[in-house]
Amino acid sequence: MPPSKFQTHAESRAHGDSQAHEHSTRNEFNHADVGRYMQLMGQEARHAATLLRRQDTATKNAALQAIARHLEASRQDLLDANRADLQRGEEVGLEAALLDRLALDDSRIDAMIEGLSQVAGLPDPVGEIDGLRSRPSGIQVGQMRVPLGVIGIIYESRPNVTVEAASLCLKSGNACILRGGSEARDSNAAIAACIQGGLSEAGLPPATVQVVATTDREAVGHLIRMEEFVDVIIPRGGKSLIERISREARVPVIKHLDGVCHVYVDATADLDKALAIAVNAKTQRYGTCNTMETLLLDAPIAEVLLPALAEAYAEHEVELRGCEQTCHILGDIVSAGESDWGAEYLAPVLAIKVVDGMNEAIAHIERFGSHHTDAIVTENYTLARRFLAEVDSSSVMVNASTRFADGFEYGLGAEIGISTDKLHARGPVGLEGLTTRKYVVLGDGQIRG
Amino acid sequence: MPPSKFQTHAESRAHGDSQAHEHSTRNEFNHADVGRYMQLMGQEARHAATLLRRQDTATKNAALQAIARHLEASRQDLLDANRADLQRGEEVGLEAALLDRLALDDSRIDAMIEGLSQVAGLPDPVGEIDGLRSRPSGIQVGQMRVPLGVIGIIYESRPNVTVEAASLCLKSGNACILRGGSEARDSNAAIAACIQGGLSEAGLPPATVQVVATTDREAVGHLIRMEEFVDVIIPRGGKSLIERISREARVPVIKHLDGVCHVYVDATADLDKALAIAVNAKTQRYGTCNTMETLLLDAPIAEVLLPALAEAYAEHEVELRGCEQTCHILGDIVSAGESDWGAEYLAPVLAIKVVDGMNEAIAHIERFGSHHTDAIVTENYTLARRFLAEVDSSSVMVNASTRFADGFEYGLGAEIGISTDKLHARGPVGLEGLTTRKYVVLGDGQIRG
Repeated sequence: MPPSKFQTHAESRAHGDSQAHEHSTRNEFNHADVGRYMQLMGQEARHAATLLRRQDTATKNAALQAIARHLEASRQDLLDANRADLQRGEEVGLEAALLDRLALDDSRIDAMIEGLSQVAGLPDPVGEIDGLRSRPSGIQVGQMRVPLGVIGIIYESRPNVTVEAASLCLKSGNACILRGGSEARDSNAAIAACIQGGLSEAGLPPATVQVVATTDREAVGHLIRMEEFVDVIIPRGGKSLIERISREARVPVIKHLDGVCHVYVDATADLDKALAIAVNAKTQRYGTCNTMETLLLDAPIAEVLLPALAEAYAEHEVELRGCEQTCHILGDIVSAGESDWGAEYLAPVLAIKVVDGMNEAIAHIERFGSHHTDAIVTENYTLARRFLAEVDSSSVMVNASTRFADGFEYGLGAEIGISTDKLHARGPVGLEGLTTRKYVVLGDGQIRG
Repeated sequence: MPPSKFQTHAESRAHGDSQAHEHSTRNEFNHADVGRYMQLMGQEARHAATLLRRQDTATKNAALQAIARHLEASRQDLLDANRADLQRGEEVGLEAALLDRLALDDSRIDAMIEGLSQVAGLPDPVGEIDGLRSRPSGIQVGQMRVPLGVIGIIYESRPNVTVEAASLCLKSGNACILRGGSEARDSNAAIAACIQGGLSEAGLPPATVQVVATTDREAVGHLIRMEEFVDVIIPRGGKSLIERISREARVPVIKHLDGVCHVYVDATADLDKALAIAVNAKTQRYGTCNTMETLLLDAPIAEVLLPALAEAYAEHEVELRGCEQTCHILGDIVSAGESDWGAEYLAPVLAIKVVDGMNEAIAHIERFGSHHTDAIVTENYTLARRFLAEVDSSSVMVNASTRFADGFEYGLGAEIGISTDKLHARGPVGLEGLTTRKYVVLGDGQIRG
């Protein structure tokens, strides 16, 4: 908000303490005292959060656009820093997949810049008031969407997450503390410099986005226990990282551990839809958490559908592991062991089980699934409704590929992750998931009788 | 849902496993193995939760009404059991306030019965679908409200909480495990028998509501760590109980620790409203969490307002503890020490501070408040809007008494507690707070390109 030429006394007092908090130079801290370093970071984040609550949409969008301009102007610095990370990674023998995730090139920088523009274009969730209603006492009561406060995000090698996470937190009015993988440290430092440049241009406090500069692993331990300074932790990465963080955190965690997704084809299914969905859910991408890992087939259609499925999967070189009946129908395929049910292959491998109706399918999903995404293919109205109501997963689908479970496909505009937790956010988490709703009461002098 | 005379094959299969799970007799367990006992309870609750998800509103309401009838028919048993608790309490020297909370009489039993009827009358939140929208891919995406699953509730001496908690969990489709105070054990057992009677009459599994029968304190330790069986813990009681549970829990906790509520009177306030609100917020009840504990006065009106306030508080025998300026204006009152700011008196004591405008008021609330409920009294439009947006509390009010922060006053119909947490539920928690929202996707064979 630009300063008005007609500021009242109350207004000028109102903006008295909104000046940017002084920021210490991050590069000079003493590695020996990681705890103290993280505490300071937490304090500054908490202070920045109180200032951020007051920022209007235009200021936040201006900062996002300014960060984009800084990235554009710093392409060469970003590529140089990334080259240093890649070289170090090669020297210590990082595997090719990791190096690929770590690498920046012009098109990935383009994507980061484009992402910032997209987030700037999203509606601002902060301040939205729902359900404002008058009560018999005369007060009006509603719920106002407000930032969570300070968000800690812990992730692995992809440096573009630094921009993504910062932009979503900023747009939703939250301060954030970002801890990327140590292998990306130079890239993240170069990106952080661009973010700082953009924040400063828009007049926002530097502690709005802080990137942890130490690669000391202790830093994570402190971050996830600073309840007084951090409101929520979002870990992004492999299951073991997320499990460790959830186990040790004192701050609440929004997480998903794994994606063991199922498609159940009911006897009344349209077999063409079933075939298309079963193939797409498995083969469109293998390494994503919304990829189907187990296919459940209702007994009456198994014999008809399995040969067509087997042919389609063979074209994609997907290895099938079947239950006894599946093996019996298809003949020459691998027999599924106990460990195949509930396995997250993230690979061209699929477990197939013939079940006796939807109850067995739901019981199987309840027992072996990960509450991520599960779909039914059916033309039966009642079964569709029951599947939707009874399957306890973060996304439940009828006649659609599990691959749609995604913030962009759902229209959230962006996604910080997918939650399989039940509290707060469930399913793809966009800007709304980074906010909370408080009650607001508008009165006219009402007192309680 | 009554069995249809025209069940289809799919339908009859669909209800195959909805039969009540076998229930072991609770009174025979071996106290030596509390861990095993709690694990079994958890398993049964988890199983009951999967059955409860399928129950329609009529069945859940029928169970609530049946429980009410059982309470009505068991008045004498309830009073006898309660008398045993009271006798034991007197023998061990429980203080009078605790004995009062523990005591049941006919009017308290009436209130429990009436409460059940009220919960039966509330709209069922389960199954509500919000924001169902078509996406460019052709899928429709919305969010469906579903039960959390299994809720553990830990509370102290009031036996009516057993009925309240059970009714709210049941109506919202959740199984629950209730752990009341050991001093109420006979009353709770008698109430549990009525609940079991009602559940059984309505054809719901007994493990829908389980009351922990052991008074062994280890039971709580197990309950709050059974992540595989319990989805959320709600502790109700004193701050020390809640702090201990939050510290030790592995299951997410919905809680509020304390209510240090503020009223800030701005210089533009209508002084009659200010006086009425300041008196009501402090004196309408002293022991509640939404009672004002600190009054903040804008400097320009302190001199006018303080004498009138002092007179009103004197009538209610409220002890005032003032900042330097307050003492200067009022003369003969106690000077507030550092520990008065942020104190939750729960008594006829009030801290008063004169501040220099709203920014100082907000900074004071941020530093000393408990993020429960804070109110401003003002006629200034811009300050009202800023106070609403910037004060980070679960309820923020303009020109209304903090005493309105309550599920009934807000129109939630009932309240399981007030949350000062940010994640999931913030402010008074009603039936909605006991549910979560999952994504539902309705397709027509869509696959991802």
